[in-house]
This record gives sequence, C-alpha cells and structure tokens, in this order.
Amino acid sequence: MSNEKLTPRNVDFSEWYNQIVQRAEMADYAPVRGCMVVRPYGWALWENIQAALDKRFKETGHVNAAFPLFIPMSFLEKEKEHVEGFSPELAVVTIGGGEKLEEPLVVRPTSETIIGAMYSKWIQSYRDLPVLINQWGNVVRWELRTRLFLRTLEFYWQEGHTAHSTEQEAREETMRMLQVYTDFAVNEAAVPVIPGIKSQTEKFAGANMSTTIEAMMQDTRALQSGTSHFLGQNFAKAFEIKFLDENNALQYCWTTSWGLSTRFIGAIIMTHGDDQGLIMPPRLAPIQVVIVPIFKSEPETAAVMETVARILTELKTTGIRVKVDDRKEVTPGFKFNDWEMRGVPLRIEIGPKDIEKGTVALARRDKPGREGKSFVPQAGLSSIIGDILTDIQKSMLARATAFRDSHIFEPKDYPELTEVVQNGWAYSYWCESEVCEAKVKEETKATIRCMPLGQEESHGKCIVCGEPARNKVYFARAY
Amino acid sequence: MSNEKLTPRNVDFSEWYNQIVQRAEMADYAPVRGCMVVRPYGWALWENIQAALDKRFKETGHVNAAFPLFIPMSFLEKEKEHVEGFSPELAVVTIGGGEKLEEPLVVRPTSETIIGAMYSKWIQSYRDLPVLINQWGNVVRWELRTRLFLRTLEFYWQEGHTAHSTEQEAREETMRMLQVYTDFAVNEAAVPVIPGIKSQTEKFAGANMSTTIEAMMQDTRALQSGTSHFLGQNFAKAFEIKFLDENNALQYCWTTSWGLSTRFIGAIIMTHGDDQGLIMPPRLAPIQVVIVPIFKSEPETAAVMETVARILTELKTTGIRVKVDDRKEVTPGFKFNDWEMRGVPLRIEIGPKDIEKGTVALARRDKPGREGKSFVPQAGLSSIIGDILTDIQKSMLARATAFRDSHIFEPKDYPELTEVVQNGWAYSYWCESEVCEAKVKEETKATIRCMPLGQEESHGKCIVCGEPARNKVYFARAY
Repeated sequence: MSNEKLTPRNVDFSEWYNQIVQRAEMADYAPVRGCMVVRPYGWALWENIQAALDKRFKETGHVNAAFPLFIPMSFLEKEKEHVEGFSPELAVVTIGGGEKLEEPLVVRPTSETIIGAMYSKWIQSYRDLPVLINQWGNVVRWELRTRLFLRTLEFYWQEGHTAHSTEQEAREETMRMLQVYTDFAVNEAAVPVIPGIKSQTEKFAGANMSTTIEAMMQDTRALQSGTSHFLGQNFAKAFEIKFLDENNALQYCWTTSWGLSTRFIGAIIMTHGDDQGLIMPPRLAPIQVVIVPIFKSEPETAAVMETVARILTELKTTGIRVKVDDRKEVTPGFKFNDWEMRGVPLRIEIGPKDIEKGTVALARRDKPGREGKSFVPQAGLSSIIGDILTDIQKSMLARATAFRDSHIFEPKDYPELTEVVQNGWAYSYWCESEVCEAKVKEETKATIRCMPLGQEESHGKCIVCGEPARNKVYFARAY
Repeated sequence: MSNEKLTPRNVDFSEWYNQIVQRAEMADYAPVRGCMVVRPYGWALWENIQAALDKRFKETGHVNAAFPLFIPMSFLEKEKEHVEGFSPELAVVTIGGGEKLEEPLVVRPTSETIIGAMYSKWIQSYRDLPVLINQWGNVVRWELRTRLFLRTLEFYWQEGHTAHSTEQEAREETMRMLQVYTDFAVNEAAVPVIPGIKSQTEKFAGANMSTTIEAMMQDTRALQSGTSHFLGQNFAKAFEIKFLDENNALQYCWTTSWGLSTRFIGAIIMTHGDDQGLIMPPRLAPIQVVIVPIFKSEPETAAVMETVARILTELKTTGIRVKVDDRKEVTPGFKFNDWEMRGVPLRIEIGPKDIEKGTVALARRDKPGREGKSFVPQAGLSSIIGDILTDIQKSMLARATAFRDSHIFEPKDYPELTEVVQNGWAYSYWCESEVCEAKVKEETKATIRCMPLGQEESHGKCIVCGEPARNKVYFARAY
C-alpha cells in the first residue's frame, strides 16, 4: 500500500530514496544488520537485468559456472594488495558442524582467489585458453554504513573471470566487457553512463587497471555502476595459473575480472524516479503495462471486464508484460497512485464510456498529468502500445542524458571546481598525481570517478596544481 | 579430455559415478573440504533444470525473491524440532569486519526461519494471503561424508515458502508442488520418480508432514530427489505469522516449504548413464546435437565445412541446441568418445561421401553401436532430428521405468524383504510403527522411502511384525 506522499527529492533525496525502495516493495531490511531482503518486485527487475546481461555475456563467448561460497583465509593472503583491500570487510566462519575449524573460512567478498586456484588446475596448454567464465551469485562485504541496494553486507551480482595467453587479449577482454556494461546501461536501463578508467587510488585491490561505468544520480552524486578489471599476471602468479605455449614454454596467464551488482537497481531508481515514485525503463520493467478497469454498477462491470480480458490476452500474445489490477477494496485513484509508486511505464484505463466508443485511455508514467494522457482506439492497441513503450524508453534516456550534461561543468580554476562539485561534476585536466587527487577529496569530498575513454590527444594544465596534464577526468561526490 | 575408459558400473558403481562427474566436466572438488565447483557443462544443465522448474512455479502463481544468507542463531532456536534437526550441520560466522560478533550468524541451511520473520512483518490481513514465494540460491550443511552433487557442504537449490489462511489450502499447496516436481522429473528429466509421503522418522525437521519424489538409481539405491512439506502452524507460531481474517479475528497462518537441489543432477547421471558416460535427456541437455565433420584432404574440408555451416544454422533456427566440434588436434574417433562421455543425445557425422549423396550419418547416444546409427537425407534434417530427440526422450523414460519396475519386489515375508532390498526395493505393508521401521533399517540398512499416493483402500499385515496395516510403503537402501 503506497498512497502516502513521498518526501520530495529536493527536500531530502536520501529519505526519498529510502521511502521509494520500501513503498514500491523493492526491498526491505532484514533482521540481520546491514542485510536486505529483495522483495518479489525488486527481484523481478533483477531477473530482467540478469537476462539482458546474460544474453550479452553468452554472445561474447562466455559460459556460466558456480564456485564455492567459502574461501580458505590463506588464499586471500596470496595476493598482497588483494588481502589488504578486503581484509577489513570479511565475514569469517570459524565453526563448522559444532567444531572449531583448523583454518577459518572467509565468506567470499569476490572470487578471484578461489577461481584462480581452480584455473591453475584446469589450464595446462594454450589450447585450454581463453577461459571465459561468469558466475551469478551472492557475496559478502562487512560494510559499516549500509543502504538498501547501494551498499549492503550481502549483495547479488555477476562476476566474470577470464584467463588469456597474451596481455593484449586480456586488455581487449577488459574493454569488451566495459563496452557490454555500457551498452546494457544505456540501451536497456536508459542510464547514460560514462565509461572510463579508474585512477590508481580508486582501482580494484589486486588489479593493474580498473575500468568503470559511472552514472549521475538526480542529486548529481556519481554511482559506480559496473567495473571491469585488467589483473595483469598478479593472480596468475599468486595462484600459479600457467600454460604451455605453442613453443612448449611455460608461461603465466593474463587474467581479467568484471562485475555488476544489485547496486544497479539503485542507479535505476535514482536516475529515473520522481516525487510520485519509481519510473521503470520499459525494457527492464517487471510490469510494462497495468490495466485499471473502471466501473460503478454491476452491468458495467461485466462489459468492462470482458474488454479488459480481451485486451489482456492481446497484449500478452505480443509479448508485453501486462497486469490487470481488479482489486475491489480500493478505488481507481488509489490504484493509479500505487502503480505510479511502482513505476509501471504505461497505464490503461478502461471504463463504460470506452466500451461505447471503442477506445481506451492511456497514461504515461514518464509524463505526469495531462501531457502524458491520450485516448486511443482499441483496434490495433498492441502495436500502439509497443510504439509508446519504445518512445518512453527513448524519452527516459534523453531526459537523463540532458540532466547529466547540464550538470557537468568545466571549471576554469580550482576555486570554481570546489564550487561546481557541490552540485554537479567537474570535467578537468588532471596531472595524474595522487597528491592533487587527495587534495580535492579532502577539500571537497569529490573523488576522481574516471578518465573517460576516447579523449582526443590534448594538452592542458592540472586544475589543482597547474602542472602539465594530458587527460581530463571527472571529479564528483559519489555513493 | 575423456578418452580413458570408465570403471564399469557393475564393477564399482560409486567409482563409475565419480569418474563420470569429473571426466564429463560436470563438477570438480573445491579446495575447501566437501565443497564443489560446478563446471560450465554441469551448470548449463542446472540452468535448464532451473528454467523448466521456474516456468512451472510461475504458472502455479509463484514469484521469486531473495532472503539473506545469514540467520541469527536465535532464530533457529525458535522452532524446537527445526533446531534439533539442523544444529549438528551448521556453519557459523563469528567474526565480521575484524570483530567478534555479539550474536553468531548461521549460514542458512534452509530459510524457514528468516523467511518466517519477514512474513510476520509483511502479512497483516487475509487480503495479503496467500504468499507464494520461491528463492533460487545456495545453502550450507556441514556434512561429513560428501559426494559431488549428491551431498556437498554447499549446494544450490530452490526453496519455496508459502503462507495460507487455511489448513486445507496449505495442504493443497504441498501436494500441488509435489505434483510439479513429479511432472518435471518424469517429463523433463525422464526420471520416473515415485511421489509419496515420508514416515514421521524421515520427515523434515519442523514439518507436520513431508512428501517426496523418490528415484531408483541403476545400483537400485533410492535417491530422494525433491521434497514438499506441510509445516502446519509450527513456524507461524514460532515467528508470529498472523493475519486478521474476514471476521476480524487474529489467526496464525498455515505454511509450506518445498525444495529441489543440484542433487537432482546426480539423479540424472545415475538413472541414465552407461559405461561410456553420461546420457542427457534431450529436453534438458545443454547440447542436444553435436556435429562432427570428417575429412582428410584440403578440398574435402572446404566442401564439408560449408555443409556443416548450413546445417548448423538450420538446426539453430529451429531452436535445437547444437555444437560443431571442429577441433583439428584430435581425431573423429576421439571426438565421438568425448561427446559420448558428456552424453550428448545425438551425433551428426558429415564427411565427403555425405556431401556427394546429400546425406548425413546420425548416431543416437541412447543406443550404442549399429542399432543407433542411421543415414538420413540433408533435406528436412531439422524435422527428422526433432523427431529423433523426442523419441530418445521417450525411450530413456521407458528404459528407466522398466529398470525400476523390474527391481521392485513384493516380498511374501520379512526374510524375503531382507533379501530383496539388497538388490531392489521392497513394496510392502507397514503398520506405521517406528519400531518396525527401525528394525528394518538396522538389519538391512533399508529405510522407508515413502508411502506412495493414490493407494486403493486395502488391508494387510505389516511385513515386519504381522500386525494389521492399511498402507504399503517402499523400503530401500538410499543415498
């Protein structure tokens, strides 16, 4: 039940987000600190995200598998940077079957180490390469400050882990998966992400290079929405992942890893939602169309419900995800609010007058009020609706892109940078020194989100220190 | 690589099983005791099992969600039988984020308790009922003797958890899901299971009544392959799952739970496999058809590969899961053995002579040697192959059913029972006393697998004690 008004975004964005997640029944707090329950409506969205990504993974030659939840503590310690990065966040099993374990087991925070151990067993020859495996599953990181979807102790994700015979191939794989994430985010979720490279400070613990897709939320904060890492030979050396090359020489593999998690649901909510609730991008929406029948008297009911049933069947047949809300105990107005809260892209209202005229009333979720309303004939409805859903998807991407672009600034100097990052992103030259990076973070809370790909060769001066710089980066406060 | 001969089933069934799982690359031992890695070929089978079940769950009105991996120890203790059943098998997290936890967290062995806690929060009124939620995930039970797929510390499964306003509705749900499992096992996996009710001794810890589907493996041992439990109001009372009924009276819900796990992969292997390896039921097979091109000279290669490419496209278009094995470094004979080990239902061989004649050679996996070979025209191939796959599915079910039925005996007295359960199942009257049940178990290692459904009303004498009995049960040694 969700007819209570949300706290508006401009009053308290954080509170608005928390309310939406709960009232749209996307997720709930679990009775274990920092853990979440993903409710059926939220999980249905995740299933659609999974399907859209999995299709892309398989098209690029990957297969799925499942590796253990538990990792011996000693495995994590084999890669120095990796264990330093993750050890503060570990959940540790010390008792099994009533007895204290000789070696504690870590609940996986990520699986490079256990998968590395298996790859070292499976890979013998260049003929076994590349190995292109993905895993859908849960991981645990002991976070102190948690928020539903954005940061929870346990979360759901996919993690791809690949092994290659050459550095070039592994680098290509890293960029290929970054491209897959970008394509997914833009074309399925209507989230206009910016792909780019992480600074050394912000990279994954154990990687040579990390790449990311960064999205701007409506409070202008950045959300890291997916990452793809080039791991060099770091894990191959730690876990002895070696192969005999074509000349019979023993070599270490080159590996990558890449992941996207339920955090992405937070990106969808905070990119598209408004003060009435969620707005789901049609391509991922669990319910694309909701039909609300409207009637007062008994004879009206029968006629309306007959038409509703016919339209339901017609839409289902064309593959549209549609639901009829025939609840008796609540009014149509209540239902409108309810489905607006849940972000269903399109509503169909069918009443006695529509039966007479052979029409239905449509209401677009992305355009509130009269602007989004139209009356269309029942004949050919599924094709009309298909077109409108396509248009909603397009409009959502256009609106989010316009919002993002109008909040990216190119400050002329450092004082201006410190201002613009309070309500937007700064796109500025950076000299690649960690000192300048740290100074910005300390003084503004903004971090380097990424160095975007495809920059033309250019020369400028670091926005912080004025030294020569070759690349621009985005500075922003982030989730 | 799998051209080594398997230990034959009649020499050492257990060794045969272990070899198949590894050589067909279904699963591997993890470096953590008792845990497994499900390799891509095994996981592809599990994905097909998931799809076939998930479709049936959704058709019967269920939705998916995700509940936390961790359960506070105190939750398990709320249902007395439940904690007694599971406490010897628990993995316990005692350290999180570097600190000792105030309350240890159990890694879920099953989720009745944590889901019960959420249901008590979500369910207020009869209008919220029924709640019909399923979860796909991993669970952990600290088993001492483990075997890949059959019994591992961590395994993958689905667990359905439903809440209802009446006892009758919950009982109906329990039986509906037993029927869903039966339908899946018989019609998708060609595993002729027997659905029935568990004895009180064998039921789920915390249930009023447990039902099961029991399958006979080729060593005649029984494998419990899926279970559906009527939980009465036990968990509703332990977790205060209450609702206001239509008369505004507060009542406890009636709940059920039901699960099927990666153990079912073991059932498929041990029902259908032969001394050459796995035999996959076509409806679930990750690869239904493998094409092996055959050629010696260069000009032959081009012609053969052109036809192979055309047939590949044709079969894919009709939705057949097909793979071309164009490896250069191994012979066709090696490939035949390799795909036989992996149980691909149908092999197509295409050589220069086939190009001349416009034919291909087919080899059925379920009928070794000449019997399973045929030569068919390339024209209309996909329809021919569709028919053959249907026939393989049917033959596999018929063969497994015949094997099962020829190993079910109705012993005339107890001494005969003790004999037949050494190489089969005994179907006998039982007086429902735990003493008789325990005697059989102690003296023969056979347990009561189930009391099958749909028995006609009858009267007999208990095979153990001779007292009056109303129902027959299956006694068998089990996995």
